[in-house]
Amino acid sequence: MAELAATPTPPYWAVVFTSLRTSVEEGYALTADRMVELAAQQPGYLGIESARGADGLGITVSYWSSLEAIAAWKAVAEHGVAQRAGFQRWYRAFTTRVARVERDNHFERR
Amino acid sequence: MAELAATPTPPYWAVVFTSLRTSVEEGYALTADRMVELAAQQPGYLGIESARGADGLGITVSYWSSLEAIAAWKAVAEHGVAQRAGFQRWYRAFTTRVARVERDNHFERR
Repeated sequence: MAELAATPTPPYWAVVFTSLRTSVEEGYALTADRMVELAAQQPGYLGIESARGADGLGITVSYWSSLEAIAAWKAVAEHGVAQRAGFQRWYRAFTTRVARVERDNHFERR
Repeated sequence: MAELAATPTPPYWAVVFTSLRTSVEEGYALTADRMVELAAQQPGYLGIESARGADGLGITVSYWSSLEAIAAWKAVAEHGVAQRAGFQRWYRAFTTRVARVERDNHFERR
């Protein structure tokens, strides 16, 4: 069951990763799942939300307590290996944006 | 064909809207398409990226030149009508986050 990330009161940081895939499937799903698992173990990790539509556009937003936490996640060796495979095989194009969340608003149906 | 948003050099602003839908389909797709069209006509609009996965989690990120542009878009009457319908019918839960994009990085396969 999909869930929205339960993030703390702002400010905190978001990494917005939007991508278009190649047709190469080999290794992709396993690695993507592993990166979600690995990110969740990092200091300063606050949550993740991810979706890929039928048109092939994917968006993953991960939330972090600080820029230092984002830098540390970027420096994790296994993450680097996955990123290189992404460049070489899995992505046709992507954009990574680092953004400071200034305010948020949550609604939940009772 | 899906496309990534072609945003300018940071800083600029992102509105990250993540949601879980109810099972109510009536009016949803038409209104969602109309909101994308209407947003693109607003001053300060820089682009939009949207995806909904098979698990029902949706992410829409719209990009804006300033907080004032976001406030003006929020105040558009037709947008308000759509938001109320979202509360009442289409969304089980959602989070809206307003974030300042501090840096970005783009890759495109040749």
